[in-house]
Amino acid sequence: MSGFDVDQVVGALRSVRGEWRDAQKRSREPAGREFPSRDALSVVIEQLKGALFPMRLGPSDLRHDGEDFYVAHTLDAALHALLEQARLELQYVGRHAPRAATEIDAQAREAVHAFGAALPGIRRLLDSDVTAAYQGDPAAHSVDEVLLCYPGVLAMIYHRLAHQLYSLQLPLLARIVAELAHGQTGIDIHPGAQIGSGFFIDHGTGVVIGETAVIGQRVRVYQAVTLGAKRFPVDAHGLLQKGLPRHPVVEDEVVIYAGATILGRVTIGRGAVIGGNVWLTADVPAGASVTQAGVQNAAPVGEALAVAAR
Amino acid sequence: MSGFDVDQVVGALRSVRGEWRDAQKRSREPAGREFPSRDALSVVIEQLKGALFPMRLGPSDLRHDGEDFYVAHTLDAALHALLEQARLELQYVGRHAPRAATEIDAQAREAVHAFGAALPGIRRLLDSDVTAAYQGDPAAHSVDEVLLCYPGVLAMIYHRLAHQLYSLQLPLLARIVAELAHGQTGIDIHPGAQIGSGFFIDHGTGVVIGETAVIGQRVRVYQAVTLGAKRFPVDAHGLLQKGLPRHPVVEDEVVIYAGATILGRVTIGRGAVIGGNVWLTADVPAGASVTQAGVQNAAPVGEALAVAAR
Amino acid sequence: MSGFDVDQVVGALRSVRGEWRDAQKRSREPAGREFPSRDALSVVIEQLKGALFPMRLGPSDLRHDGEDFYVAHTLDAALHALLEQARLELQYVGRHAPRAATEIDAQAREAVHAFGAALPGIRRLLDSDVTAAYQGDPAAHSVDEVLLCYPGVLAMIYHRLAHQLYSLQLPLLARIVAELAHGQTGIDIHPGAQIGSGFFIDHGTGVVIGETAVIGQRVRVYQAVTLGAKRFPVDAHGLLQKGLPRHPVVEDEVVIYAGATILGRVTIGRGAVIGGNVWLTADVPAGASVTQAGVQNAAPVGEALAVAAR
Amino acid sequence: MSGFDVDQVVGALRSVRGEWRDAQKRSREPAGREFPSRDALSVVIEQLKGALFPMRLGPSDLRHDGEDFYVAHTLDAALHALLEQARLELQYVGRHAPRAATEIDAQAREAVHAFGAALPGIRRLLDSDVTAAYQGDPAAHSVDEVLLCYPGVLAMIYHRLAHQLYSLQLPLLARIVAELAHGQTGIDIHPGAQIGSGFFIDHGTGVVIGETAVIGQRVRVYQAVTLGAKRFPVDAHGLLQKGLPRHPVVEDEVVIYAGATILGRVTIGRGAVIGGNVWLTADVPAGASVTQAGVQNAAPVGEALAVAAR
Amino acid sequence: MSGFDVDQVVGALRSVRGEWRDAQKRSREPAGREFPSRDALSVVIEQLKGALFPMRLGPSDLRHDGEDFYVAHTLDAALHALLEQARLELQYVGRHAPRAATEIDAQAREAVHAFGAALPGIRRLLDSDVTAAYQGDPAAHSVDEVLLCYPGVLAMIYHRLAHQLYSLQLPLLARIVAELAHGQTGIDIHPGAQIGSGFFIDHGTGVVIGETAVIGQRVRVYQAVTLGAKRFPVDAHGLLQKGLPRHPVVEDEVVIYAGATILGRVTIGRGAVIGGNVWLTADVPAGASVTQAGVQNAAPVGEALAVAAR
Amino acid sequence: MSGFDVDQVVGALRSVRGEWRDAQKRSREPAGREFPSRDALSVVIEQLKGALFPMRLGPSDLRHDGEDFYVAHTLDAALHALLEQARLELQYVGRHAPRAATEIDAQAREAVHAFGAALPGIRRLLDSDVTAAYQGDPAAHSVDEVLLCYPGVLAMIYHRLAHQLYSLQLPLLARIVAELAHGQTGIDIHPGAQIGSGFFIDHGTGVVIGETAVIGQRVRVYQAVTLGAKRFPVDAHGLLQKGLPRHPVVEDEVVIYAGATILGRVTIGRGAVIGGNVWLTADVPAGASVTQAGVQNAAPVGEALAVAAR
Repeated sequence: MSGFDVDQVVGALRSVRGEWRDAQKRSREPAGREFPSRDALSVVIEQLKGALFPMRLGPSDLRHDGEDFYVAHTLDAALHALLEQARLELQYVGRHAPRAATEIDAQAREAVHAFGAALPGIRRLLDSDVTAAYQGDPAAHSVDEVLLCYPGVLAMIYHRLAHQLYSLQLPLLARIVAELAHGQTGIDIHPGAQIGSGFFIDHGTGVVIGETAVIGQRVRVYQAVTLGAKRFPVDAHGLLQKGLPRHPVVEDEVVIYAGATILGRVTIGRGAVIGGNVWLTADVPAGASVTQAGVQNAAPVGEALAVAAR
Repeated sequence: MSGFDVDQVVGALRSVRGEWRDAQKRSREPAGREFPSRDALSVVIEQLKGALFPMRLGPSDLRHDGEDFYVAHTLDAALHALLEQARLELQYVGRHAPRAATEIDAQAREAVHAFGAALPGIRRLLDSDVTAAYQGDPAAHSVDEVLLCYPGVLAMIYHRLAHQLYSLQLPLLARIVAELAHGQTGIDIHPGAQIGSGFFIDHGTGVVIGETAVIGQRVRVYQAVTLGAKRFPVDAHGLLQKGLPRHPVVEDEVVIYAGATILGRVTIGRGAVIGGNVWLTADVPAGASVTQAGVQNAAPVGEALAVAAR
Repeated sequence: MSGFDVDQVVGALRSVRGEWRDAQKRSREPAGREFPSRDALSVVIEQLKGALFPMRLGPSDLRHDGEDFYVAHTLDAALHALLEQARLELQYVGRHAPRAATEIDAQAREAVHAFGAALPGIRRLLDSDVTAAYQGDPAAHSVDEVLLCYPGVLAMIYHRLAHQLYSLQLPLLARIVAELAHGQTGIDIHPGAQIGSGFFIDHGTGVVIGETAVIGQRVRVYQAVTLGAKRFPVDAHGLLQKGLPRHPVVEDEVVIYAGATILGRVTIGRGAVIGGNVWLTADVPAGASVTQAGVQNAAPVGEALAVAAR
Repeated sequence: MSGFDVDQVVGALRSVRGEWRDAQKRSREPAGREFPSRDALSVVIEQLKGALFPMRLGPSDLRHDGEDFYVAHTLDAALHALLEQARLELQYVGRHAPRAATEIDAQAREAVHAFGAALPGIRRLLDSDVTAAYQGDPAAHSVDEVLLCYPGVLAMIYHRLAHQLYSLQLPLLARIVAELAHGQTGIDIHPGAQIGSGFFIDHGTGVVIGETAVIGQRVRVYQAVTLGAKRFPVDAHGLLQKGLPRHPVVEDEVVIYAGATILGRVTIGRGAVIGGNVWLTADVPAGASVTQAGVQNAAPVGEALAVAAR
Repeated sequence: MSGFDVDQVVGALRSVRGEWRDAQKRSREPAGREFPSRDALSVVIEQLKGALFPMRLGPSDLRHDGEDFYVAHTLDAALHALLEQARLELQYVGRHAPRAATEIDAQAREAVHAFGAALPGIRRLLDSDVTAAYQGDPAAHSVDEVLLCYPGVLAMIYHRLAHQLYSLQLPLLARIVAELAHGQTGIDIHPGAQIGSGFFIDHGTGVVIGETAVIGQRVRVYQAVTLGAKRFPVDAHGLLQKGLPRHPVVEDEVVIYAGATILGRVTIGRGAVIGGNVWLTADVPAGASVTQAGVQNAAPVGEALAVAAR
Repeated sequence: MSGFDVDQVVGALRSVRGEWRDAQKRSREPAGREFPSRDALSVVIEQLKGALFPMRLGPSDLRHDGEDFYVAHTLDAALHALLEQARLELQYVGRHAPRAATEIDAQAREAVHAFGAALPGIRRLLDSDVTAAYQGDPAAHSVDEVLLCYPGVLAMIYHRLAHQLYSLQLPLLARIVAELAHGQTGIDIHPGAQIGSGFFIDHGTGVVIGETAVIGQRVRVYQAVTLGAKRFPVDAHGLLQKGLPRHPVVEDEVVIYAGATILGRVTIGRGAVIGGNVWLTADVPAGASVTQAGVQNAAPVGEALAVAAR
């Protein structure tokens, strides 16, 4: 009927969808959407940001004496919305071996309960991140500026929430939350990464941190740093083995300058300094400094290594 | 009247606009906007995403038995909105040698008709991209997760639509679509780039792919990879020559790790592996692996080259 | 009352907030928000973009003969909204030594007045940036395309406004504006950076330019270029010294290719060319070209240095 | 915590809610809302208005050749949303004697199926109403004006949809739809009222038509006309008897002028004319005209009776 | 495909639309909407309300020193949007005898130009209405309260704008504006009615004023008053004659209490008082008071007539 | 500059505004808006409706176990927003004799505190209204239907809140709230009217109840009933005397049928029944029934009087 052969295109698209569903061996067509919703999670995270930092990230007309009312209602709403998404993930993940709805519900409730209980600890960690950014950046004027302006801090708010979801066996929700941060900041942290307190990412665009990375306390990294895998281990049948440790361990108080690439399950010792653009696939002892020219054990970190734009 | 000398600033701004218009030799003032609209195209692309993947990227309350109704209406609306934008581009491009409105209209209709007819093929290519991401990433749990979470897949949805517009002589519309993806994902693919099926961009931030790049099937690239021009050829008068092939040809099943920079009309042979951060301005034979240390013909790709953060 | 122990979590969050406020030695609780608002500034910048480029970035139904009406009203609204934010910054900054509201108001008005008066000059500079992008990129079809599509131009609109705020002693507002651009484009320019006319950033993702950088006229940079600090100078007590020049000086007509890192208060002489991925911490003479292989004084810039993806 | 004793008020409100729930003998607290949603029905009706009159009440950018695509998708969405509301009504109504969800679902589906099938007939009736208004009002310029401007026509669109819901045993949905019209037009037609084709309400504010009213074809009424009940019949126990015919029967081609009040199960004979402000509780023979001064059998309708403001 | 036979219903609806279009003898299908838009006019009226009363009905953050900027931009936007609607009406009205687009455009421009020029006079009339309400209602506390709260004043803002459109030969636009007021206030004034300065409608619900009514200065009416037609004059062929005077003439300083109905081209003399619920189809001499009991020439208006709810 | 002489119209409008301000003797121009905001109050009332009936009029996804969190936060927000509006009214009212801001603030806080404390009592009264409607209307299926669908109940929610504001010396806020209800329901109740528990308005369009009306318990009224003033008392100087009792007193269990008009400070005795369209300006003894034909003391209310449309 339309001048653009819409009916014909609709038919052709239907065929392609059919091919795809056949290829995916989907015997049963879902009636509706069954996957957790990015939009719904985006709302949940906004609510949680407000509940964690009510006077800074909550509604602009909030007053101090109404903080707890706001936090209680917002938290209540956020946790129940998260519960719905958790149910969707558990149903989706178990779709090939369906479980009773009550069982899924119980598991989801337990996870969300634990998630809520973890929030005060997450706030405390985020406070340490804010402090680290404030102390580490000569251009920072106040902790409030850091909280409200720094993309590295924003990325950590998302990561610490995503990591909690990951730890509670909700990896899809965690992944969606991580990508929400990635889209806004250009910082790509896998929700599985373990990151200690006082973590500071400066500038941030292009940072990539992998699933099994372990990062200690008071670590600082700059833009375009990669903490990646050197190889993907395969089993005897040539299939990828999942979950094996394959990303770096970065000990306390390490500094990694912009563009550095560290690959594999290597350990960067406490207090080491990795120079800009360095390519690194081996352990680094504590206190060492690494430049493009080589490793200098226990050498004081020279001026030449600082790559920051403040 | 206002405390901020608004009248005076308005006058000064008017003068500067006048200078600019004079410098651009705009003899005639347009009555209104004549350029295609970024906002309108953004809506069109959202509609097309829904029409291509109705149950995943369409409205959240869509049910399977209403898919075709939704696809037909959405497609009809999207194509007609696109028609309006195509007319705007053709008028704008031809503004120095105005053509009859009917002629422009006919050309726009023909282009949009062909665009609509190409959509099933685009969906099939995107399915191959999703499959490639799912198979190539040990951290991917399902094809749905890949479609909904991976920025590299999002960038390819935009690119394959933009490339179709580019091929139909609508380069401005194509460029706007490409920048919509760039802003969301940090992945900058020129709409002219030819990319085969099963293309997978992991992490993605900082990837740049140039206009005349040609990429084969089942190629994989990581974050911050550049496929750029080595030089801009000039003609006898020193003017830039447009449209000459100036970006790499990447053959089937090549892998390019993070931060690698490949410049000029070189060819990366089938199955080659380019290591992280490599700087490359020469051809690479099929099956070779290139690291910062040099080229190893037909050598097995070593562990040390894999730069991924999963 | 809720199944998620909301009351208990609320109490624990209150305790953590108390700890933080104690740590920050906040003797007095603010009644409401006291920090400038990112959302409010975002609206102001959108208004200013429209006032600067009414027919391109203003409302889509604006006609030429209504331009000045639109500009006057929009500017009036934007400047008064900015005045409110300026007051908030001045109050916040001076919160430890409160001043009279009238004094703050007078200072804020003076700053916004000067800001308004500077807008015509900013428009002229932005016109030069648009021209530079159009002339420098073989893929650009028109100045309108450049203005509407190029993230590098978008980043410069934000930067030139942010730099003006910074120059008027409103560094927090300036910083918020800079981060608005960073989030949209992946280009991170500190508002303190001084940038001459005709500046062109191609692709842009990952560019970082520091606070005391000084950039001349007609300079061109590509994606992932860093103009950073080599060290953070400390005083006799080991405390960071603020505001000292610590970023590069880039003279007129320099070109810096993708991924180059230039650190410290070095000077890149007029017309020099810095190759892709170069790591540089020393002065470069005028006319020189620097590649990964070394410096070639006054050598013609070879093809091999051009790293662009058009 | 707040200056307004919020905690105390919250507690007192909780007590009052408890009293109410006790008074209603609600042994079981609902987990969430169980009543059909006014907002959801409002959306459904907007969709149905568009599906019935796509080029007039559908989206403003609809073109003729996309009508069917729009109608199909919109109808599909509206019917499924209505299905959800129908389920809610059936569950709510049967809350004291819960039925199996599948049984409720089957009944709801059957009702919505029949509702959909009735839509073409409803459109035909509405066309007759539009024609009647156009022919009956000297001020009407076109049928399009009538459809788009006349509150009496708007009220009939709602009524004919509401009456269909009422006939399909969904009286709550019907009532909500009727009140949506009442709020917009000041015309209060009970969804049970049976109204023939070609019905025209002029001006309309204050019109009230009762549940068991029966109106023939080509009837015309003016503002503030009431077709009400004279008494509420009670049974032997003094309880109200529901559903008994208690409102007027108005035969074909009757005209009722502004402010007339007709009460009880009286019959107004074919072609009768009821004058303005008349108070009437008795039958009127066919062709009669009734004024405040009395009944004139078969008298021609005099000028004095016409109360219209055109 | 859907469970609700959507395809079949779509087909049946298409048939009914076809019948209707045939009945309307529409030989040619319009490509898109051709009727003026209620939504667009609603926006125009909101803009005009702001332009007429900037500090009371304009944006809440407007300051006094920005009034003229706001008024100029808003007026410019409103008049151009109105121009588009005027073109639509003229095209629609002349659809059976198409005229050149330039001719229609010229007529529309002339009308809108005259409309703009009339606005200051309209504001002056509305000021007189506000004053009348303030002086006439013992419950009114201030002129601002009257402007912002009284539905009778709101109705007059719409009416005075609608009447201007009607006078400029744009009766469809005028009608749509009148119905916007009717829907919000329950007051139905035909845009043709001529109403002098200082008109006050108290409460207002149910007021109906006809097309050829002529109302003098300082007249006051209460809720549910009708100024209607007694008969619709017909010509020799029995066809309705349009445009003949058929509604009352109400001279200066008349008061009409609630529920009074005045029909036909009668004259209510200067200063007369018409009691509540009176039914009147004859002239009333100046200074007379009319109650349900009869006419009392030149009698002082007694207490018994005042029907107001303040 | 524009084709519509915008500059000239702007100037003329400025002149008219000047005339008005001169006429109002406004020596000082306000910098901004000083009147309470209809939009802000509309939001407050929506919040209060939710706080009063959380599971029915609160957010659709509220669950029972989160009721108190929602009520607390919503109430806190509503009361503080109301406080701001109360301040605006007090400043506005006292603008001719300015008081200290702290004094105004204290008065506003006290009023809002008392308002909050009154809410539980208001909820209890509204429950009685809902019960009355359910018991009095044979067509009502449930108390929930009554609460969610009946315009008479909606009007009472607004009235009981408005009356509380009126009692707390905030008559402007009260008036705005009353007009919000009037616009939605066509029911115009002055906020000063005192109305006992169990009040039921059926249909409602056109009901007008005046400022000093006093209504007992369990009273029922139908559409278009007026309880108005018979005269406006004047003092020795001929000026209107404000605040004197001038509207009817309606004792317990009275029923007033549609269109009845009762004027002046008359008393309608307990249990009396007033027939439809009756015009009444004298006392009615308890138990009497009044029809258009006269008063029947203590007569049983006959069938003929019931004017209802159920």
